[in-house]
Amino acid sequence: MEKLHELEQLVAPIRDDLLSGAAEIALRAITAFQTMLQGTEQMSVKEVEQRLISTAHALTEAQPAMAPLFHLSNKVLLAVKGAKSVVEIHERCQDALMKFEKQLCESAEAIADLAFDLIPPGELIFAYSFSSTVVSALVNARSKGRFFRVVCTEARPALEGRKFATMLAAGGIEVMHTFDNALGLVLPQCRAAFMGLDCLGRPGVVNKVGSWPLAMACKELNIPIYALCGTEKFVDDERVFEFEKHDRPGEEVWENAPKGVRILNRQFELIPLSWLSGIVTENGILTEKDIGSYVSKLEVHEALKLESSAFL
Amino acid sequence: MEKLHELEQLVAPIRDDLLSGAAEIALRAITAFQTMLQGTEQMSVKEVEQRLISTAHALTEAQPAMAPLFHLSNKVLLAVKGAKSVVEIHERCQDALMKFEKQLCESAEAIADLAFDLIPPGELIFAYSFSSTVVSALVNARSKGRFFRVVCTEARPALEGRKFATMLAAGGIEVMHTFDNALGLVLPQCRAAFMGLDCLGRPGVVNKVGSWPLAMACKELNIPIYALCGTEKFVDDERVFEFEKHDRPGEEVWENAPKGVRILNRQFELIPLSWLSGIVTENGILTEKDIGSYVSKLEVHEALKLESSAFL
Repeated sequence: MEKLHELEQLVAPIRDDLLSGAAEIALRAITAFQTMLQGTEQMSVKEVEQRLISTAHALTEAQPAMAPLFHLSNKVLLAVKGAKSVVEIHERCQDALMKFEKQLCESAEAIADLAFDLIPPGELIFAYSFSSTVVSALVNARSKGRFFRVVCTEARPALEGRKFATMLAAGGIEVMHTFDNALGLVLPQCRAAFMGLDCLGRPGVVNKVGSWPLAMACKELNIPIYALCGTEKFVDDERVFEFEKHDRPGEEVWENAPKGVRILNRQFELIPLSWLSGIVTENGILTEKDIGSYVSKLEVHEALKLESSAFL
Repeated sequence: MEKLHELEQLVAPIRDDLLSGAAEIALRAITAFQTMLQGTEQMSVKEVEQRLISTAHALTEAQPAMAPLFHLSNKVLLAVKGAKSVVEIHERCQDALMKFEKQLCESAEAIADLAFDLIPPGELIFAYSFSSTVVSALVNARSKGRFFRVVCTEARPALEGRKFATMLAAGGIEVMHTFDNALGLVLPQCRAAFMGLDCLGRPGVVNKVGSWPLAMACKELNIPIYALCGTEKFVDDERVFEFEKHDRPGEEVWENAPKGVRILNRQFELIPLSWLSGIVTENGILTEKDIGSYVSKLEVHEALKLESSAFL
């Protein structure tokens, strides 16, 4: 009972974190699994497995659009399947967590190297919302001597664009910042656009609300737009739509809105894959036609299958 | 000297009013002219004329994108031209002001009647920023028994969209409100879009920043978009670009932005005429090809010609 309370305490900051990118949040989820395993030495294999399943459910439901939370949970559950002792569960779980963390870091590095060549030297580029993958790609390019300027916008209502601007500026990049609907003032001056993403499947790409107008405007203006993401963001078709599950409180947009005014506060939206010029992953720059082969190979633990979770 | 100070006091609230529509602000400018005429009975004709010219310059420079401020000033200056006495100036000026006010009110009524037929019954429509012309058209349609729902967004950074939502809700209209970059979540559900505008000429339409992504998205989604405006918003080609003259303080977007981050805070932007389905005026629903004939007939007082004002 006490441990359930602890799980809620571990998951709440992940649910309420509107400022961090998906990769950042996944690193925090690793800690959640590690904490939930503490003190399980005297429990049965079945009990420990159940605890890991509860942790996996809590994490994936905290931010349903964030694919790395699903993949991390899925990898842990698949890894411990068939373990004969609690010690074995601990070992396999820790191994899965460390592999995932290593993969996240290596992905970011490989993506940054590929992104370098997509940044036009001396030009203005657009970057949206907050993505630790995009931050590291841009700061890496700057530190390798590529000079460019970045325009980014607020990303209302959570304003994670300010965190993004601050980190880029701290990395020695010249930043211009404006409000989200000023897209038409700045985008025509940009030579390329970059965004992170939360999950990706055959139906499209899920990212922070505001990505749809950006991608559409890039199409209209013939500006290449790239999504930077490791393949840990790839999910099966049904999971793509999980982002629609959770609306945020209206008060985050307008506190004390008058009677008769209903507030819509959704965090994520779907963008057609065909609107993106490329998806920059650790395995190269992919396009729409490449996605199917990745997604069809996904093995999903039964506790995380969307059909089964509906009955839990 | 004291009167100059008074002029500044009359104009400052107009310059800093980011929440009101152009028609509303024009009504306040009428008061400014009336106040500046007070106590001029003992002055010479030339001195009073000069005072009116100073008032006209102060008003048109306070909000360079707002065409009605230009037209009101222009009509006053043209009306008093050639007056033989201060009494005659007073009479002609008062007459021009009253005619302008009457025209604004009659325009709004005629536009509301035309807009009625453009509102699809029972559907969701999108409306952007704040425009008293749009408010009166929508509230008028509702009071005539047309049922529809309106989505509107914040219009950062001044958030005049909240004032808009509040006035629509007070007029009995069901309103859904969200942040500006949520355009892609709501617009596909809308059957028509409406906006006011600040000025219009052959190079395009000038309106609050955010109108460009809206109009582009309407084009992409095949949703008709109408600008509601009286012909007092029509200006000659050079004046269209006056909106670029004044950037607002960056602090209105982000107070205490970190070093290395430059803030862009511009209020207005240009939208191609071809992106609009129609311009709903007191003279009917016009399209791009109709604009030239209106603009070419404009008589501009020499004190308000853009070439001459550069030397003042």
